[in-house]
Amino acid sequence: MTDSDSLTVPGFRVSAVSAGLKKDNALDMALIYSERNAVAAGVFTTNQIQAAPVIVSRKHISDNRARAIIANSGNANACTGETGLNDSRDTARITANLLGVSANDILVASTGVIGQSMDMRRVANAVPRLVSELSEEAIPLAAKAIMTTDSFPKISSFEGHTDGKRYRITGIAKGAGMIMPNMATMLCFIITDLAIKAGQLEEAVSGAVNNTFNRITVDGDTSTNDTVLVLANGMAGNSILTETEEERFSCALKDIMASLARMIVKDGEGATKLVEIHVKGASSKSDASKAARTVANSNLVKTAFYGHDPNWGRIMAALGRSGIKIREQDVEIFVDDVQIVSGGMGCGTVAETRAAELMSKDEFTLAVNLNQGIYQDKIVTCDLSHEYITINSDYRT
Amino acid sequence: MTDSDSLTVPGFRVSAVSAGLKKDNALDMALIYSERNAVAAGVFTTNQIQAAPVIVSRKHISDNRARAIIANSGNANACTGETGLNDSRDTARITANLLGVSANDILVASTGVIGQSMDMRRVANAVPRLVSELSEEAIPLAAKAIMTTDSFPKISSFEGHTDGKRYRITGIAKGAGMIMPNMATMLCFIITDLAIKAGQLEEAVSGAVNNTFNRITVDGDTSTNDTVLVLANGMAGNSILTETEEERFSCALKDIMASLARMIVKDGEGATKLVEIHVKGASSKSDASKAARTVANSNLVKTAFYGHDPNWGRIMAALGRSGIKIREQDVEIFVDDVQIVSGGMGCGTVAETRAAELMSKDEFTLAVNLNQGIYQDKIVTCDLSHEYITINSDYRT
Repeated sequence: MTDSDSLTVPGFRVSAVSAGLKKDNALDMALIYSERNAVAAGVFTTNQIQAAPVIVSRKHISDNRARAIIANSGNANACTGETGLNDSRDTARITANLLGVSANDILVASTGVIGQSMDMRRVANAVPRLVSELSEEAIPLAAKAIMTTDSFPKISSFEGHTDGKRYRITGIAKGAGMIMPNMATMLCFIITDLAIKAGQLEEAVSGAVNNTFNRITVDGDTSTNDTVLVLANGMAGNSILTETEEERFSCALKDIMASLARMIVKDGEGATKLVEIHVKGASSKSDASKAARTVANSNLVKTAFYGHDPNWGRIMAALGRSGIKIREQDVEIFVDDVQIVSGGMGCGTVAETRAAELMSKDEFTLAVNLNQGIYQDKIVTCDLSHEYITINSDYRT
Repeated sequence: MTDSDSLTVPGFRVSAVSAGLKKDNALDMALIYSERNAVAAGVFTTNQIQAAPVIVSRKHISDNRARAIIANSGNANACTGETGLNDSRDTARITANLLGVSANDILVASTGVIGQSMDMRRVANAVPRLVSELSEEAIPLAAKAIMTTDSFPKISSFEGHTDGKRYRITGIAKGAGMIMPNMATMLCFIITDLAIKAGQLEEAVSGAVNNTFNRITVDGDTSTNDTVLVLANGMAGNSILTETEEERFSCALKDIMASLARMIVKDGEGATKLVEIHVKGASSKSDASKAARTVANSNLVKTAFYGHDPNWGRIMAALGRSGIKIREQDVEIFVDDVQIVSGGMGCGTVAETRAAELMSKDEFTLAVNLNQGIYQDKIVTCDLSHEYITINSDYRT
């Protein structure tokens, strides 16, 4: 969805400018502003090395309240020490002053090169422009301003009703690798005019992230800057959500995040296809997850996807080293609806030829049945191509 | 060392033939025979999916005694069910009959395509030729016969003295990825004429493997067929080893394995350089190992090696997600003797330019000091190149 009308969320205004942090005057800063105090919830990277904006935003969101998100691409402000922390704090302060709100209500996010100081002169020059250009229509521009190696902006929107009131959820995201310290990070900002309690929002956000952004992988790496922020300003005017209404909102939020998450994998560095790995029949939830992740991150499996080769030996070997409970003779493997492994052994060349055809599509499902128990998990991954090497071996310039 | 004279080990004879398991009449079967009962020790893959020859050899080596190793390339005999197990047992039996020894004293190893039945007619035809062609000089041919995607045969030899007697250790190995189910596996066979007790040999072998083959990585995958076998036939005639002599032997064995392990990484699929990752100052041995392995297996770090880019942000990010105790502001990183990170921050472009020069060499060391404690670990890895993708995305043909 890129029709800007349908993206608008009442009470939110957005802007995007070129601050000169990226080359060639590309959009590289975005501001998302709520006219009212918004309830806020966030999820941040689990990496122990955390970028300055992550540290600052974690603190600012701890009261579950925010007025604005200010984001930049071109510089991750990570591994920048005390200076970096001051720069993120200053960015929040400058923005807060111009918006006439408290610095504590500004959330900051950055993505780009690691280990370089922010050019604060350029940031300080850009913020007044961001504030003066705030409008309801600039969401697509903001989606562009947070892009790094992304090849397309990622936007998703939803309209629902609750308590007789219409409300909207709109999200933007960026990311083309789990981490690219050249041009780093997964960022996602979601705004809604629903009225919701802080505790309800927090629960919905963490559940949705766990089932979407935590279920995708491009290269198994985790960024220092990963950030998901959700702001709900209550302009829809609905009354307190019932349990059913809360569940419907959680579901819609999850759909938005799932759609953005799939776009990130689709746009994975060098990716030519999106593969949903589905492991079932595991003897525990954790076994299902470990098995799915090991298969989804195996370079040998991912290069076989690239060559659309139903090389099930690599999948068996990845399962075997994943540390889960497995009986070789019970394993079944399917590409979409074609079974290629039965009883731990290959189903023959006819099945493999059909599977290879399915694997030449842009998207397919690889399902593994361990036949050990009742647990399952899914993870979305992509293939590993020549282009990934080209993107990531280029000297930072 | 390829001078076949210097490789000879008294009491051992070796042969290699083309059985027709590989295409174009390449050598694909090897026999290593000890004229006397030899003390034997082995280390096998930790993958839960284990190839038939691994299962059979584990059983046959359980009495710490062997007379011969029969190995083939071209077919891994993995994921082949009961038929595969019978094929490995038959291979041992046929060989034993012709050598006039017990089948239980024959160790079997295979490497090649997963999931295809062995062509036992060809194997049965080849074994008599292997037996009749046994000679002291064929070690280099055996090293060739176990190659799959390897680009060169891997041989290492050592001559020592103990108790006034001269003894020799000679090893051959194959492997060009931790696993390649197309063309799978790391195999290593080592023979020595030293007289050593089974317990001493076992201890020496497991210690040496742990410090060598378990300290290398090409792509983080683990084969279904990995096998290290060591045979000691006692022809050197030395008396029982003292503790010091035992230690000297362990050291020599470790040197042989280390040299073969480095050759495997050098010959890693698509590898253009060998990198020794050295993590020190960790707060536990396990932290040092986790940190070294996470850095050594990160696709982003490995593609940066390929582009000889001292992209320390990627190294910091890998350390941060490795699950170890880390304080960002304490981390130091060095490329050979050039420091590129101090106090968790970059040392600037002069240092990076010098580091990039060092990284353009065939081999360099990447050292990380966590400054958290006294523990350290080393792991040898290679870069991730376009050629890796080409090798592994080609459809199995």
